Amino acid sequence: MLHNPVIASQGRKLRLAVIGGGPSSFIGTVHRGAALLEEHYEVVASVLSSDPIKSVQYAKDIGIPRGYASAEALFETEVTLKDKADVIAIMTPNNSHFDLVNRALELGFHVMCEKPLTNKVDEALSLVNAVRKHQRECCIAFAYSGYPMIRQAQAMIQAGELGEIRMVQSEYVQGHLAALTQGELEQSNWHMKPDMVGPSLILGDIGTHCYHLAAFVVGREPSEICADIATLVPDRAADDYTGILMRYANGARGSFVITQSAAGADHGLYLRVFGEKGGIEWHQEQPNQLIVRWLDEPTQVLQKGGKGLHEAAKKVSRIAVGHPEGYREAFANLYTDLAEAIVDRENGKQPRSQKRVFPTIEEGAQGVRFVDAALRSHQQNGSWVAIPAAQDDL
Amino acid sequence: MLHNPVIASQGRKLRLAVIGGGPSSFIGTVHRGAALLEEHYEVVASVLSSDPIKSVQYAKDIGIPRGYASAEALFETEVTLKDKADVIAIMTPNNSHFDLVNRALELGFHVMCEKPLTNKVDEALSLVNAVRKHQRECCIAFAYSGYPMIRQAQAMIQAGELGEIRMVQSEYVQGHLAALTQGELEQSNWHMKPDMVGPSLILGDIGTHCYHLAAFVVGREPSEICADIATLVPDRAADDYTGILMRYANGARGSFVITQSAAGADHGLYLRVFGEKGGIEWHQEQPNQLIVRWLDEPTQVLQKGGKGLHEAAKKVSRIAVGHPEGYREAFANLYTDLAEAIVDRENGKQPRSQKRVFPTIEEGAQGVRFVDAALRSHQQNGSWVAIPAAQDDL
Amino acid sequence: MLHNPVIASQGRKLRLAVIGGGPSSFIGTVHRGAALLEEHYEVVASVLSSDPIKSVQYAKDIGIPRGYASAEALFETEVTLKDKADVIAIMTPNNSHFDLVNRALELGFHVMCEKPLTNKVDEALSLVNAVRKHQRECCIAFAYSGYPMIRQAQAMIQAGELGEIRMVQSEYVQGHLAALTQGELEQSNWHMKPDMVGPSLILGDIGTHCYHLAAFVVGREPSEICADIATLVPDRAADDYTGILMRYANGARGSFVITQSAAGADHGLYLRVFGEKGGIEWHQEQPNQLIVRWLDEPTQVLQKGGKGLHEAAKKVSRIAVGHPEGYREAFANLYTDLAEAIVDRENGKQPRSQKRVFPTIEEGAQGVRFVDAALRSHQQNGSWVAIPAAQDDL
Amino acid sequence: MLHNPVIASQGRKLRLAVIGGGPSSFIGTVHRGAALLEEHYEVVASVLSSDPIKSVQYAKDIGIPRGYASAEALFETEVTLKDKADVIAIMTPNNSHFDLVNRALELGFHVMCEKPLTNKVDEALSLVNAVRKHQRECCIAFAYSGYPMIRQAQAMIQAGELGEIRMVQSEYVQGHLAALTQGELEQSNWHMKPDMVGPSLILGDIGTHCYHLAAFVVGREPSEICADIATLVPDRAADDYTGILMRYANGARGSFVITQSAAGADHGLYLRVFGEKGGIEWHQEQPNQLIVRWLDEPTQVLQKGGKGLHEAAKKVSRIAVGHPEGYREAFANLYTDLAEAIVDRENGKQPRSQKRVFPTIEEGAQGVRFVDAALRSHQQNGSWVAIPAAQDDL
Repeated sequence: MLHNPVIASQGRKLRLAVIGGGPSSFIGTVHRGAALLEEHYEVVASVLSSDPIKSVQYAKDIGIPRGYASAEALFETEVTLKDKADVIAIMTPNNSHFDLVNRALELGFHVMCEKPLTNKVDEALSLVNAVRKHQRECCIAFAYSGYPMIRQAQAMIQAGELGEIRMVQSEYVQGHLAALTQGELEQSNWHMKPDMVGPSLILGDIGTHCYHLAAFVVGREPSEICADIATLVPDRAADDYTGILMRYANGARGSFVITQSAAGADHGLYLRVFGEKGGIEWHQEQPNQLIVRWLDEPTQVLQKGGKGLHEAAKKVSRIAVGHPEGYREAFANLYTDLAEAIVDRENGKQPRSQKRVFPTIEEGAQGVRFVDAALRSHQQNGSWVAIPAAQDDL
Repeated sequence: MLHNPVIASQGRKLRLAVIGGGPSSFIGTVHRGAALLEEHYEVVASVLSSDPIKSVQYAKDIGIPRGYASAEALFETEVTLKDKADVIAIMTPNNSHFDLVNRALELGFHVMCEKPLTNKVDEALSLVNAVRKHQRECCIAFAYSGYPMIRQAQAMIQAGELGEIRMVQSEYVQGHLAALTQGELEQSNWHMKPDMVGPSLILGDIGTHCYHLAAFVVGREPSEICADIATLVPDRAADDYTGILMRYANGARGSFVITQSAAGADHGLYLRVFGEKGGIEWHQEQPNQLIVRWLDEPTQVLQKGGKGLHEAAKKVSRIAVGHPEGYREAFANLYTDLAEAIVDRENGKQPRSQKRVFPTIEEGAQGVRFVDAALRSHQQNGSWVAIPAAQDDL
Repeated sequence: MLHNPVIASQGRKLRLAVIGGGPSSFIGTVHRGAALLEEHYEVVASVLSSDPIKSVQYAKDIGIPRGYASAEALFETEVTLKDKADVIAIMTPNNSHFDLVNRALELGFHVMCEKPLTNKVDEALSLVNAVRKHQRECCIAFAYSGYPMIRQAQAMIQAGELGEIRMVQSEYVQGHLAALTQGELEQSNWHMKPDMVGPSLILGDIGTHCYHLAAFVVGREPSEICADIATLVPDRAADDYTGILMRYANGARGSFVITQSAAGADHGLYLRVFGEKGGIEWHQEQPNQLIVRWLDEPTQVLQKGGKGLHEAAKKVSRIAVGHPEGYREAFANLYTDLAEAIVDRENGKQPRSQKRVFPTIEEGAQGVRFVDAALRSHQQNGSWVAIPAAQDDL
Repeated sequence: MLHNPVIASQGRKLRLAVIGGGPSSFIGTVHRGAALLEEHYEVVASVLSSDPIKSVQYAKDIGIPRGYASAEALFETEVTLKDKADVIAIMTPNNSHFDLVNRALELGFHVMCEKPLTNKVDEALSLVNAVRKHQRECCIAFAYSGYPMIRQAQAMIQAGELGEIRMVQSEYVQGHLAALTQGELEQSNWHMKPDMVGPSLILGDIGTHCYHLAAFVVGREPSEICADIATLVPDRAADDYTGILMRYANGARGSFVITQSAAGADHGLYLRVFGEKGGIEWHQEQPNQLIVRWLDEPTQVLQKGGKGLHEAAKKVSRIAVGHPEGYREAFANLYTDLAEAIVDRENGKQPRSQKRVFPTIEEGAQGVRFVDAALRSHQQNGSWVAIPAAQDDL
């Protein structure tokens, strides 16, 4: 690679504005660092707090040139600038995504939006239409789909290497809410406030990751699910556990176990898929390995940057085999995907978003439908309920 | 330990008769080797085939002194001998367990019986009563409960080290049936014949292991479950997959994923339990380690024979830390448990069977109830159904 | 396998006598259990203590029919019996091996002898000649060579799958002597007494295991070595650490790190070999896996009993893939090897001992030479010294 | 953390100029991305090729504002600018480091320099003096020392948690040169050219990493070493293997195994240290875990960002536990260390470089001495040779 194709095509780095992710936020650092890491973006503008004075001061503190007092101020001013932002990254509370994404698209910005896309199915479907209408690129920050070995798993299944899919398992078993009381939870941040986080804390926060990861890798979604949503920690109002069983149209079966209240657990995201010829297994805590089991051959351990990988996996790993890449590199890969999609679009090429290379607005909307279906099943004491397919009504 | 307490007490090794487990069988070698390994038993008699001639010849071939033509011949003759067998080990097809265990108990033998105890709940409950009536010791070969680190996990939970239990997960994801067609399956052995294996291949064969292991370690059973039983491999009559969600009376939740059709998987039995203070994780393929996570302390990896173990775990490991012990040692521990229980009983001590040290007849019966409940849920398209508690009707 | 070939050939199990390994000994339980496990042997006689009264009592306590007061009493009596022992297993202090092996061979017994074979090179070479002269089978208890995945590694290298060997690494990093004082060590047992354990505690006790394992798998021995022997724990007379570099005649290089004073380490035996086409890696604490790396293909993890194995590995695993086998099974495999060699010899077939299937007397003698060479290098402050090849003077 | 202390102190990001690391280079991407990731630096100037035209073009291609035709052009121009670079990062062939570092220091720039510092001991010592004379900050890119769990290991040993150190092991066993012929090697890049890479390919390229990592963590260096340097791949002029034994002044022992010709190996850097109370173990391929073994307590697995960590480890991890951080984050930590040291110096605080928080010029010089000592030992057929201590002649 003798040059950076994004810059070669634009003659410059892309300009990123961020809304949300103040200095004490985990995700703000992740988004900005990920955008900077691969030298495709510069961070030019920000709204870093709902407090206007803090928002402006924080931008100064961390070296962002244009610190705005509010999202609306950012939109109104940026749209007038000659060197205006190309992309708006949105990492505000879940209930604000709908308005901000809508506004950004209307004004012609491309978008990077945190998951879940929205808290309501109708809002999500409306955003799918907005993206199509305004012809902008929109990436949903399902960050785990950016890992090289997830791309490898996806490519193997697309190529039929596992044969027909029979079984899908994912877990997201974290521990950081295992000891907090309800009061502490409410103090902690907006993730604990139902009006902001949405109808299910656990499903909105991490359940959509399991759903997206499984769908992204397997290339198909369950046709029906049953869910048991519960609160493991006593005296807590929010839900903090979901067990899910799934059925696929081809007869395959699936399951999810999702919690943030498993005392002592760290991150715990895991995906395993079995097909008729073999299976893949991936753990986010060891993301640079993909375990591949075969019906008739010994188990293999594929390594990021190593031997036997598909192009899709090679493309998103930039440092040599054995040098670990982590969460921010996975995130950076989504930013690169988005940059390439923007450049393709501006050059009149078929937008990559239509090739499902990175998590699209449609995938964001399916995540919202998954939450909705799980809640419906739960309200019917675990009855099996259908999930509409992505194409059903769009 | 300066002597073998079993021999010291009896003045001799215990005498074992085996029914089932012919020369080509996996489990026959396992039972006999496990009984011999710790020098508590000698194998004195056998029925090694349903073919009378083969049964006698096989005994000769593998050096068992008294080879009988049939189970009934064994029972009739042994009961008359001065040096008659003390214990009958039963490893015949599931549908024969009820009669054989019954007969053995009536004649005054102690029993080691393979799981599942029976294929029907009423038969299982009847055997519970028979054991109590005849005052014999009966161990069900839930072999995984013999591993030192499973005993450690049980002891930690009994001692309250994890606090109130909140979440239980077990998987048994094997691959050896992933490629066989129905025809091949039927040829292969009795495990594939519904009349012999019972109402569910997958639940009878390995599902009961998950259920027992979780109950043995956690010390409580779910109050209700929902199940999705399926056939993953097309053109197969038998079921080969079950996904299960569980609710415990204290609000804890649980899940099982059980299959033998995961292409490329090896053994795949796994147990994870989280309580309010931490969690344990154990994998049968690395059985000498127990991962222990803590709410406020770093994760520990306990080692069989190593530091920080309860007496219950130390007792069942006889070789030094770092020297692996495997499946047959776990099995041997059940045989040792049974031997000690027999000696205790003969010496008028409280039988260990009442202390739930090893898998008792009651635990065998609960396994049969679990299969029954899963089938009931499945027949109602996954509705939640209750599992009676062990004490409910016994 | 429809019958036990050892029993089929003899019409009975082989009869084993054990010398050493009293009730409080680790290795006694291991030898007897390993011999019993696969149903090829019965234990008929023993000397279980250097105290004659205890020796007889202990036999009674653990159910061995003929308990002798001394080794000489055992030899004198057994040789006269009609059902005399076939094999003598020797697990006494190292300095007694020479006399006992010699005596057993003279009287026509086959032998299983603990490592190191002797404490002196000339004694070892003399025993090589005695085995040849008396035409008996003699197995040295280098137990790790009995593991299925070690047999697999050996078979792969013999078949040229790794190409020319370039690099060999072994470590045996244990911790059980990390905290004992010299006084405690001396009390503990004969392993700490130089006159009994031999010229180097660390090399005699575990260093010979590294050397044998590497030679057994690789099929070649180093031509020269340099050694740094040290005492890591202050105020201790015995050595407890050795670092070794090795050169092979073909230009390959090797290294060993050996200690029992690594605080907190468990067992720590490890072997890694690289050839021009790939490499193998094996850890005794996870003995059922063999990691295989390839120049141009993804890494594989071979499983005992699993896919892609050589016959030599399949033959020594008797239970299904994913069911762990441990240290006593490895030991049992040596006992089976020895049994088969005895039967072959008695049936006039070429003795397996000449095919280097199990650790022979010649391999025992090379272990003694390794200790001798390391000590010579150490005495010359780490100069490189030659190790004679097995065939050089035999 | 409510603001970025580097920016708060300077009122701006630091300005970085890079020399070396063209578009096809692995290390160029790593340095620039690492500098950008934590938002402390912007990349303002570069020399990206020894070909002046390419150097200028490449800067354009990847969006660096000031692309110079040569290092000298960069130095001459930058020094005159108002917004001149603060730091020069040097990643050119090893034989050019001396001149470039010297020049940068003379002109008042701070420096980030790739390892090895130089190819000659006298040059290295001269640079130590230059850094002291010009009072600049200089960080050597021993990147592995930037990992959080390496900082944790260092902090534990500094705090005496392992007690007196007894044993040190490191390996760097890579495979990427296992199959290249000498001709191919010479074509490949400057790493294979002795005049550029220095007197030992293997020691200059990766051996210094082992040495630095061990010294950085343990806080002491060996007093003498013996080395066996070899060429494992036939028909290759360069060395590609080194085995090393080490003795420390306190009686501890150590060993290194270093190669890039282990067919199939990936990265393979590993460090293990045992003290009287326990030991630590770290593998670069799983960098977010530190295994800690204890004399009297169960083994722990510490996690980056997790429980039980020292401040030094917490400080260099910015994303939550269980979210992996990789090689570029480790590198980014060195850039942050350097930024903080620069700010401290400019604010008149004691420079952190004197607290050995990050790899200093003195540590770079000790790496050069290690290579020199290994070569001296090798030339004397593996005799033990002394390594001067850092303070001996500086």
